Amino acid sequence: MKTQPDSCFFEARQRLLLTRLDARGLPFLVVTKPANIFYLTGFRGSAGIAVFGPSGGHLLVDPRYTIQAAEQARGVEVKEVTAGLFRAAGRRLQKLRARRVGFEENHLTVEEFERLRKQGPLGAVWKPAVGLIEELRVVKDDFEIGQIHAACLLTSQAYEEVLPQARPGVSERDLASELDFRMRRKGADGVAFETIVASGPRGALPHARPSTKALKAGELVIFDLGAILGGYAADMTRTIYLGAPGKRVRFLYQAVLEAQQEAIGTLRAGVKADKINAAARRRLAAKKLDKLFTHSTGHGVGVEIHERPRIGRGEQSPIPAGSVVTVEPGIYIEDFGGIRIEDTVLVGAAGTQILTPAAKDRWWLE
Amino acid sequence: MKTQPDSCFFEARQRLLLTRLDARGLPFLVVTKPANIFYLTGFRGSAGIAVFGPSGGHLLVDPRYTIQAAEQARGVEVKEVTAGLFRAAGRRLQKLRARRVGFEENHLTVEEFERLRKQGPLGAVWKPAVGLIEELRVVKDDFEIGQIHAACLLTSQAYEEVLPQARPGVSERDLASELDFRMRRKGADGVAFETIVASGPRGALPHARPSTKALKAGELVIFDLGAILGGYAADMTRTIYLGAPGKRVRFLYQAVLEAQQEAIGTLRAGVKADKINAAARRRLAAKKLDKLFTHSTGHGVGVEIHERPRIGRGEQSPIPAGSVVTVEPGIYIEDFGGIRIEDTVLVGAAGTQILTPAAKDRWWLE
Repeated sequence: MKTQPDSCFFEARQRLLLTRLDARGLPFLVVTKPANIFYLTGFRGSAGIAVFGPSGGHLLVDPRYTIQAAEQARGVEVKEVTAGLFRAAGRRLQKLRARRVGFEENHLTVEEFERLRKQGPLGAVWKPAVGLIEELRVVKDDFEIGQIHAACLLTSQAYEEVLPQARPGVSERDLASELDFRMRRKGADGVAFETIVASGPRGALPHARPSTKALKAGELVIFDLGAILGGYAADMTRTIYLGAPGKRVRFLYQAVLEAQQEAIGTLRAGVKADKINAAARRRLAAKKLDKLFTHSTGHGVGVEIHERPRIGRGEQSPIPAGSVVTVEPGIYIEDFGGIRIEDTVLVGAAGTQILTPAAKDRWWLE
Repeated sequence: MKTQPDSCFFEARQRLLLTRLDARGLPFLVVTKPANIFYLTGFRGSAGIAVFGPSGGHLLVDPRYTIQAAEQARGVEVKEVTAGLFRAAGRRLQKLRARRVGFEENHLTVEEFERLRKQGPLGAVWKPAVGLIEELRVVKDDFEIGQIHAACLLTSQAYEEVLPQARPGVSERDLASELDFRMRRKGADGVAFETIVASGPRGALPHARPSTKALKAGELVIFDLGAILGGYAADMTRTIYLGAPGKRVRFLYQAVLEAQQEAIGTLRAGVKADKINAAARRRLAAKKLDKLFTHSTGHGVGVEIHERPRIGRGEQSPIPAGSVVTVEPGIYIEDFGGIRIEDTVLVGAAGTQILTPAAKDRWWLE
């Protein structure tokens, strides 16, 4: 598996950024959010600041990261900095005589902004610019799609391997550990979020962490997991039933599965996000289950596990070709349990592709 | 294992905080750093704001965390907030007619601060107050010490169980996965930092992540790991040699071990941090190895893996009784490898206690 793309991908991303900056009349941008620095330069260290302007980009790192930055960063000049990253970024902007500078107001603390501003050009105008890079990130290039697909396949495989261990008596936590272990052994950098294994009534809690509770016969179990591979995330949820499901559980599972299929069927390039959400809801409403679907239908996946676009009520922007999104309707019944089915889906120009192939039809374990 | 302390511990912490605030002439404090919110209230959710003032504390959480906050939080009133945490915190301060308010300038983004200030009392004076709670956290109470000790024992056990698998041919990443898996199976919430397994020349890199490189005979291997248990971290490093070590490797290992023992021997309540660092360095200098020791000697451990005090050059503040710190000298030789030995140590009023008991004298595997 190739984990470092060619520099052409990064150069294309940076060029697009400069065009967008130009269109906003904002010639300079200070990038402090690690996910955005990784997206624009390939540098995966946790500390660094990128400064972009008409003459190109600089990546400032402290001495711990000099070698790593030199290896990973593409299309930018790497500068080692010893007296503080924010001070150095300020001084660089001063050198560049920057007058109008964008910054990521949701990824810069009050303290850091003060340091940056003090060393920056006198009288510069600082403009909040959150969302600019996040907007670019919605459309994935071929390298990114390959990476996300690989992360999704790895996640599906780990799930299918561990599934036979999901038996009455095994604890949620042991299953979660086993899933994480398998993902790591298959080459994942780590997990994109804390793996969820929520059984019985715990499946109805919005933020259930895997507990020492043992699985019991006659319970639904939700598995929500995703690997990170080469810096890109996967996201998948499956629900199973321990035992032979009765009529009610079959009815509920089938309803969620159909809602998910309906939403995926509606998903294509150019469709408004709102419509995909409405499709899932409509299907559940037909069975009087829509009130139990208490969250939005999906979200983008990429260098972050939750990114744009949001697929939910009132989202009027069309999903562009090249997006990768989750489709994950679910229903939750207090003191009983939950059912959620989620895939990561590529929205291609010619059609959609489910990237997480783990089975959804073999959902009970006798 | 008891994982929720009695509310008396939290009430004592909150009382102490109010005293400190009072001494600074700062009657109100907005706490936004999750580690500090956990320390003061026991709430372990990732989103929430605590507001402390003369009449007590409030914990504001969004609806996802209402149940969890009600279960976990001690000594504060929990308020569910639907229209934004920062706006709600601002309005609460307005209700309380706060005139001078401290905030954590390193844990509040420019965007969040704007929201807080806009809804806050008109004309209020906002004072950066970073470090106030971190200072309190240096001295651990009995519950915290018990929790850290348990995390350290679990970490040591996982290491000793996995050690026999450290053989030529096994990859760094597989060993790291195995360590993480064992820690989780023993009940850890997770790992306090990404487990390091760095073999041969990779042991000399300052930020080596476990790679697919296989261990080889005749190599040194550094293991640096720590579990989180009940919200508290452990930190331990051991170095082993694969094969029968020659004279040079024995000399180097012995030097680091003696430096570590000397530093631990110097450590006691009231000693300046600088002196502990100097003790380790002196011992290495006697063997002309001090230039290879390129980092500080230790740091506090608690709800965060790195916290105060720092044990390094120039640190003049005395280590108080009740501190828990690491002692971790190491030497690094380019293209050859590294040796680091680290324990988590409790500094009691009557003496020190090593909390990470894994063997340091059986360090080669034949």
